[in-house]
Amino acid sequence: MSRLSLNQITTKNWSLPEAVRGCVEAGIPAIGLWRDKVAEVGVERAAALVRDAGLAVSTLCRGGFLTATDRDGRRAALAENLRALEEAAELGTDTLVMVVGGLPDGDRDLPGARSRVAALLAELAPHAGDLGVRMAIEPLHPMFCADRAVVSTLGQALDLAELFPAEQVGVVVDSYHVWWDPQLAEQIARAGAGGRIASYQVCDWTLPLPADALLGRGHVGDGHIDFRSLTDQVTAAGYTGWIEVEIFNEDVWQAPGEQTLRTMMERHLAHVVAP
Amino acid sequence: MSRLSLNQITTKNWSLPEAVRGCVEAGIPAIGLWRDKVAEVGVERAAALVRDAGLAVSTLCRGGFLTATDRDGRRAALAENLRALEEAAELGTDTLVMVVGGLPDGDRDLPGARSRVAALLAELAPHAGDLGVRMAIEPLHPMFCADRAVVSTLGQALDLAELFPAEQVGVVVDSYHVWWDPQLAEQIARAGAGGRIASYQVCDWTLPLPADALLGRGHVGDGHIDFRSLTDQVTAAGYTGWIEVEIFNEDVWQAPGEQTLRTMMERHLAHVVAP
Repeated sequence: MSRLSLNQITTKNWSLPEAVRGCVEAGIPAIGLWRDKVAEVGVERAAALVRDAGLAVSTLCRGGFLTATDRDGRRAALAENLRALEEAAELGTDTLVMVVGGLPDGDRDLPGARSRVAALLAELAPHAGDLGVRMAIEPLHPMFCADRAVVSTLGQALDLAELFPAEQVGVVVDSYHVWWDPQLAEQIARAGAGGRIASYQVCDWTLPLPADALLGRGHVGDGHIDFRSLTDQVTAAGYTGWIEVEIFNEDVWQAPGEQTLRTMMERHLAHVVAP
Repeated sequence: MSRLSLNQITTKNWSLPEAVRGCVEAGIPAIGLWRDKVAEVGVERAAALVRDAGLAVSTLCRGGFLTATDRDGRRAALAENLRALEEAAELGTDTLVMVVGGLPDGDRDLPGARSRVAALLAELAPHAGDLGVRMAIEPLHPMFCADRAVVSTLGQALDLAELFPAEQVGVVVDSYHVWWDPQLAEQIARAGAGGRIASYQVCDWTLPLPADALLGRGHVGDGHIDFRSLTDQVTAAGYTGWIEVEIFNEDVWQAPGEQTLRTMMERHLAHVVAP
């Protein structure tokens, strides 16, 4: 379990102190924090809680939403992401997950939205470097292209990341979002060769998709993804960092947190870790 | 309206004779047929109906489902697709749309499924050539990768198609499935340069996704896709064929067919045809 991390959204009904206690009791050595949960207790206290518990902070979720067309919207995004970078540094993680944002209302110009993402990343990157926090661009599944992320593939995320130094901008490999990609193997190898894999997140693709397509993710092993093969590729690319379990799923959220952590750990052994 | 075609699923509650009459009365010159609707009247009578009405048949939907792992499943798929190719020829269309199939139950081996698709296409391709019918591989949106089509991008469809002569295997450019793809422009150009665009289908990406993710497609103009730009790319690639409207949507299906055809024609003028 030495590389396992609980992304806090997986136990959505736990507060930050509850999630920290849960990890410690289960023997999970790291946690991926969410800004809203951190805000509930305050950044300073959150930092102390995880530090005192001896937990590593694998990631902070999340920054991004960089596609606004107007000057005020871009300024607000810049300010918000600077705050997120500072919070990440204060919480003791080197990784801020970035969901880049979808098309603005009524806008159909995908190339335009993508170029605005690059422009704001360019403004943020030096600050990330100064703070020792890397922005990790997360390609989201193409079904979220319109409303959440105009970056849909690992290759596209790398095209963006490679505009900047590797210590400032990296990528997230999230199984749910990228498992279907016919170019996945070559893009993981490319990401590894460039030292760009900032985070490896896992959850499974299950069917049918629920009414809210955001919440269709399953425990590792419940769906269609070949985690052994995927993990082998990420490992062969040189990634030795945290393996973070991030599940958006109403049923998982309704389960007791302790049970969710047990399932996570069982599945990690059965499907992710090399035998 | 000289390039407009009604894909029959768009007026799902119409029988084939009703759809043919609807097209004639509306002045739509072509129709894309579905095998189940053809079967209701018989292939011979269906062929006579469209021919006597003076309609062109833009496509037959559909063949495919080529991912079975067992010998019997592969043989059944081969036989079924040979029948579909023969039906296409008898109906007077040169294009059979192919949805390649998803992962077999309990199977997580995507590369394996993809290689079985290539193997069955190789068996079918000479027959397609003999019949003068081209198999048009349709990449489906990645959200259908597990259950419907392990071919998810235009580039991947072209990698497959280019294993065979262009008159035997081409690709479908369906706006709904490919609009998000960051490589779309270059892959459309590649498809055009190789003479591989066998069909251009249009409908819009609308949100939220419905409970049945298959049925989330909207009329052109109701969603997030930039049809003017997409059509310009397909045209610049040299495609001069039919523009087929294919909508899976319960509300559209409940509307009177005549109204659906009027909306199609209005949207075609407003969003697709160059001004």
